[in-house]
Amino acid sequence: MKKIGIIGATGYTGEELLRVLTRHPNVSVAFVTSEQETGTSLAKFFPHLPHYKNMVFRSAQEVVDTDVDLVFLCLPPGYSAKWAKLFVEKLIKVIDLGADFRYVDAPTYKKWCGIDHPFPELLEGVVYGLPEWNRDAIKNAQIVSNPGCYPTTVLLALIPLLKAGVVANEPIIIDSKSGISGAGSSLTKTTHFGEIHESFSAYKPGRLHRHVGEMEQELSKHAQRKIQVVFTPHLAPLFRGLFSTIYVRLQSKLDRSDLLNILTDAYATEPFVLVLDEKLPAAKMATHSNFCFLSLTTVTDSDVAIIFSMIDNLGKGASWQAIQNMNLMLDFPEQEGLV
Amino acid sequence: MKKIGIIGATGYTGEELLRVLTRHPNVSVAFVTSEQETGTSLAKFFPHLPHYKNMVFRSAQEVVDTDVDLVFLCLPPGYSAKWAKLFVEKLIKVIDLGADFRYVDAPTYKKWCGIDHPFPELLEGVVYGLPEWNRDAIKNAQIVSNPGCYPTTVLLALIPLLKAGVVANEPIIIDSKSGISGAGSSLTKTTHFGEIHESFSAYKPGRLHRHVGEMEQELSKHAQRKIQVVFTPHLAPLFRGLFSTIYVRLQSKLDRSDLLNILTDAYATEPFVLVLDEKLPAAKMATHSNFCFLSLTTVTDSDVAIIFSMIDNLGKGASWQAIQNMNLMLDFPEQEGLV
Amino acid sequence: MKKIGIIGATGYTGEELLRVLTRHPNVSVAFVTSEQETGTSLAKFFPHLPHYKNMVFRSAQEVVDTDVDLVFLCLPPGYSAKWAKLFVEKLIKVIDLGADFRYVDAPTYKKWCGIDHPFPELLEGVVYGLPEWNRDAIKNAQIVSNPGCYPTTVLLALIPLLKAGVVANEPIIIDSKSGISGAGSSLTKTTHFGEIHESFSAYKPGRLHRHVGEMEQELSKHAQRKIQVVFTPHLAPLFRGLFSTIYVRLQSKLDRSDLLNILTDAYATEPFVLVLDEKLPAAKMATHSNFCFLSLTTVTDSDVAIIFSMIDNLGKGASWQAIQNMNLMLDFPEQEGLV
Amino acid sequence: MKKIGIIGATGYTGEELLRVLTRHPNVSVAFVTSEQETGTSLAKFFPHLPHYKNMVFRSAQEVVDTDVDLVFLCLPPGYSAKWAKLFVEKLIKVIDLGADFRYVDAPTYKKWCGIDHPFPELLEGVVYGLPEWNRDAIKNAQIVSNPGCYPTTVLLALIPLLKAGVVANEPIIIDSKSGISGAGSSLTKTTHFGEIHESFSAYKPGRLHRHVGEMEQELSKHAQRKIQVVFTPHLAPLFRGLFSTIYVRLQSKLDRSDLLNILTDAYATEPFVLVLDEKLPAAKMATHSNFCFLSLTTVTDSDVAIIFSMIDNLGKGASWQAIQNMNLMLDFPEQEGLV
Repeated sequence: MKKIGIIGATGYTGEELLRVLTRHPNVSVAFVTSEQETGTSLAKFFPHLPHYKNMVFRSAQEVVDTDVDLVFLCLPPGYSAKWAKLFVEKLIKVIDLGADFRYVDAPTYKKWCGIDHPFPELLEGVVYGLPEWNRDAIKNAQIVSNPGCYPTTVLLALIPLLKAGVVANEPIIIDSKSGISGAGSSLTKTTHFGEIHESFSAYKPGRLHRHVGEMEQELSKHAQRKIQVVFTPHLAPLFRGLFSTIYVRLQSKLDRSDLLNILTDAYATEPFVLVLDEKLPAAKMATHSNFCFLSLTTVTDSDVAIIFSMIDNLGKGASWQAIQNMNLMLDFPEQEGLV
Repeated sequence: MKKIGIIGATGYTGEELLRVLTRHPNVSVAFVTSEQETGTSLAKFFPHLPHYKNMVFRSAQEVVDTDVDLVFLCLPPGYSAKWAKLFVEKLIKVIDLGADFRYVDAPTYKKWCGIDHPFPELLEGVVYGLPEWNRDAIKNAQIVSNPGCYPTTVLLALIPLLKAGVVANEPIIIDSKSGISGAGSSLTKTTHFGEIHESFSAYKPGRLHRHVGEMEQELSKHAQRKIQVVFTPHLAPLFRGLFSTIYVRLQSKLDRSDLLNILTDAYATEPFVLVLDEKLPAAKMATHSNFCFLSLTTVTDSDVAIIFSMIDNLGKGASWQAIQNMNLMLDFPEQEGLV
Repeated sequence: MKKIGIIGATGYTGEELLRVLTRHPNVSVAFVTSEQETGTSLAKFFPHLPHYKNMVFRSAQEVVDTDVDLVFLCLPPGYSAKWAKLFVEKLIKVIDLGADFRYVDAPTYKKWCGIDHPFPELLEGVVYGLPEWNRDAIKNAQIVSNPGCYPTTVLLALIPLLKAGVVANEPIIIDSKSGISGAGSSLTKTTHFGEIHESFSAYKPGRLHRHVGEMEQELSKHAQRKIQVVFTPHLAPLFRGLFSTIYVRLQSKLDRSDLLNILTDAYATEPFVLVLDEKLPAAKMATHSNFCFLSLTTVTDSDVAIIFSMIDNLGKGASWQAIQNMNLMLDFPEQEGLV
Repeated sequence: MKKIGIIGATGYTGEELLRVLTRHPNVSVAFVTSEQETGTSLAKFFPHLPHYKNMVFRSAQEVVDTDVDLVFLCLPPGYSAKWAKLFVEKLIKVIDLGADFRYVDAPTYKKWCGIDHPFPELLEGVVYGLPEWNRDAIKNAQIVSNPGCYPTTVLLALIPLLKAGVVANEPIIIDSKSGISGAGSSLTKTTHFGEIHESFSAYKPGRLHRHVGEMEQELSKHAQRKIQVVFTPHLAPLFRGLFSTIYVRLQSKLDRSDLLNILTDAYATEPFVLVLDEKLPAAKMATHSNFCFLSLTTVTDSDVAIIFSMIDNLGKGASWQAIQNMNLMLDFPEQEGLV
């Protein structure tokens, strides 16, 4: 039995970690922290998670000396690095669900997050936690940076096609639709029921969202050339689903079956990436799971291919993928607790 | 006071015509028909529309000799042409809300609708009912074909840019998200609450949806060159909104303000097309109105521009636009009953 | 053409007043105020209401000397009385959409709102704005207190039955389900999309909600005996609808048709109260209207009757009813602008 | 490893059984049947449940001789009895998720279901599958009748209070709000997205729904006197939650804490019934779980108590409770696979 802790556990990703870890046979939760709710009992804050009813939110500072094997950081941008540094120094493994370790170096971080990275020296050893493409590195990492929700859909869809060399050197259009869990539980006009329900909206279109930097960095690495994306995130009136529609230009005329084979071959042995032949994916399929569903089509009289990629925002898009990473880092079966 | 009739009034577009016409000072409803509900009183079928409580659904055959000024056809594909012919022969004006008159000729109709047009000779005189670009022709038309919901968003967004010559000769990517009213009130797995709620899905992607033919036909006409679109319609868990995100490549590097001016100039005097400067559109803005909201952005380091276009599916996307057309055809003020 | 003003126009009820008044032929909006948005143009704040694009939110203090015929107050509890006093002194009629004038005297106000009434002397002349039961008084009132949303459903359902003497002297059980518009546009955990969507909850059950006082006061007045209610408001995942299920014990065994006749007779000439015979009401029926739908059933082997009452929260539950009151106070046709 | 089968697996309860059983370590699914989808692969029908991708829907007739330990029946009323009889004769245990075995005798069944029971002789040995109150009998049962979703909420809330003798002999008012999963996946006007979304409605109010018979039968048994309920089921625009608000008259003036203690004591050792002290329950709390949450309040100046009871329709309201029953019947730990 290994012990884990969660720093910043009152938000959606922390809550989802707690919910799912209830089912994990090899892990117990040693502490959860919240600076705003320090001292509040989980029986009161999460009455629907009675498994943790005897725990209390603690302050992060209080728990740094607790003996645990791994810590999940669920913090806003700029707050993770400090804690990652502290835990790593104690040889405790860290999975960061935030943005602080997703960029290869400090200038890239600053470009996309707008602030100086507090501990740039940590960045070098970080492993980007997309198990399907970095499995071995994750197993040995001290710090794993859990991918962003949008990049998860995009990378799983595009890496195989880019590696196969079938994608032309043109901007890739990514049109993503996200449930509201992605916007977090803090109170903003954007997340008021009256703004979301019976509505649909776009935000930060083009090259404004910081996930653009994350996608381009990882796509370019796998493609071994500079990839440019045009990305429009949208808010859709649902809670958990995330649906990306991706438009690429093909190098040459290819059949749908050729493209589909590239995906099918890439993920033949992957437990959590499912390539659909007939059915177009629907966001609902991935609800409360760690699956990413992929599907694609070519377009008559056109060199455009459309790839669909769909996950649960809090599942493969955040907490469940984090547990998949934890399983790799703590040497558990990769699917443990995730079925 | 002019008299109108509605053929096929039990669906969403018929219901919405009835709801909105309640507010129209110059029009009375002489008959509504339904083959399935012939004999049913509207008091029972539409108890929330008490204005019509003394009416009864009649059979279309029964009403062909009624003296009315204009008839709305709200029928499935293939069913409108026959009735249009009958009414036009009696010099009654017709607005068809279906697909039967949206294509310039019989081969194009067959290509996109899959069936032979029953009365191809009627097609020549039909006017495409997009008032912003065909106002004068609509005023004098016998048959007006009300545009499809998706094409309404796309045409209003793109015609000015195409006419201005700023759009490169590349496929235009159209990613549209529609509320469920667009799928109609008939019972299908697709429209079951359990399939839509907390989900998001795509259908007929690429060049499969018959609105592709309608968009390309009208766009090409205004651009005076062949326009090709790649179109993915999606079903979003809302009822009325329709939101299109459109990606074009620009001929040359243009500022956002230049592009915005093209739209602003094009619609400066239009009552129902609103170009937003600051705010990104949200589908909710158009709810229960005849407005189309437009917005756009250019993309840093890229020749891509993104245009957002948003309507109420049953508003500017169907019944309210039909009433706008009626106002033109019957010589009423264009905004009558539509505020 | 009469002139009106709106104090506190950025919330849902203010916005809905603006939306609906666009259609009113006899009224123009002279000013709208907001203390938080003073100076903001409506073109920016309400881009979907272009009718008002040249207006700017002003401070309430700035507009007190404007020459208008009537002012709507859309303010939180405790804030209306001061402005009502100021406007009434200038002989400007006032419709208050808040709670400040809903109680007959200062002690009752204090009991239910928890604060001292700032100007108790004003209470005496106030008319409770339920047109179906106070029409003549409203016509001559200086201050009309627009009823709460829950009380509107309950009073319209119960007054006829109480006046007919068929209801036994037992607690009346009122189980109400409200859309989120009733909770207002301010940012609270309660109104976060993540709390409401795919959920359903109760709040202030029993005799805790201040609408209990309002209901009992008005019901007792019409019944001419003390009426006690047990009331549970619930939040349902919709925006506009409000649905009340009301359980009464009958004095004696009565047929459903007898009870229905009492309602039908009471509202035979009312334009905005519709008694349904066959269909059970659904909240959707009232959307974007000023209708209240009523329906009822008796229960086999039981002296319980169940009455259903349904409105649009922002319609008959707030802004549309306020306009109905305005029509009466300014001597317009009662249905003007409300169809 | 025990083997189970599912008769009628294409609906929501069958799908949920499959989803949850994936996590059960002691059970494998030997067959699933569907008469409409006989021959269809689960890879195609349930692509989101890849665990079963090599299975095919079979006809029930085909599988009757399969060697399994237990069979779940997920069939419409009137269809279960025949299969129950067949399996029981082969000494295979049966859990029926339908209505066929919920009534103590054939006349009661006929009264509430409207048809003659095909095998009334089976009814005697059936155990009503509410583990909290019938645990020992369930362990030894051949046929367990899984409770209806509404009765589950009502029985768990009321049995302790009735047994404690604190409830007066007056009709009990039950106002329940159900998500749409309760209405099943078949295509009806009632379940069309356009009817449910942004709406709220009642159906079969009073004593019309067949769950009234089930509730009264079980409540009366535990109370040892005849209990009468007045029950209004409502459809709310969510998918999984079920929320019951229950109004009882108390025998004598009791404090809230006294009543709460009755519930707390009754369920102190129960893993799946959680009594909340402070927080009012919200339907969302029970999502994707086997929990029933209970809460209650007394009412100032009144002998009414209000009890809230909340479950996931497909969880404790159907499939998860069925698995809880299976765990008891096959001698597994009661919580296995249900955390």
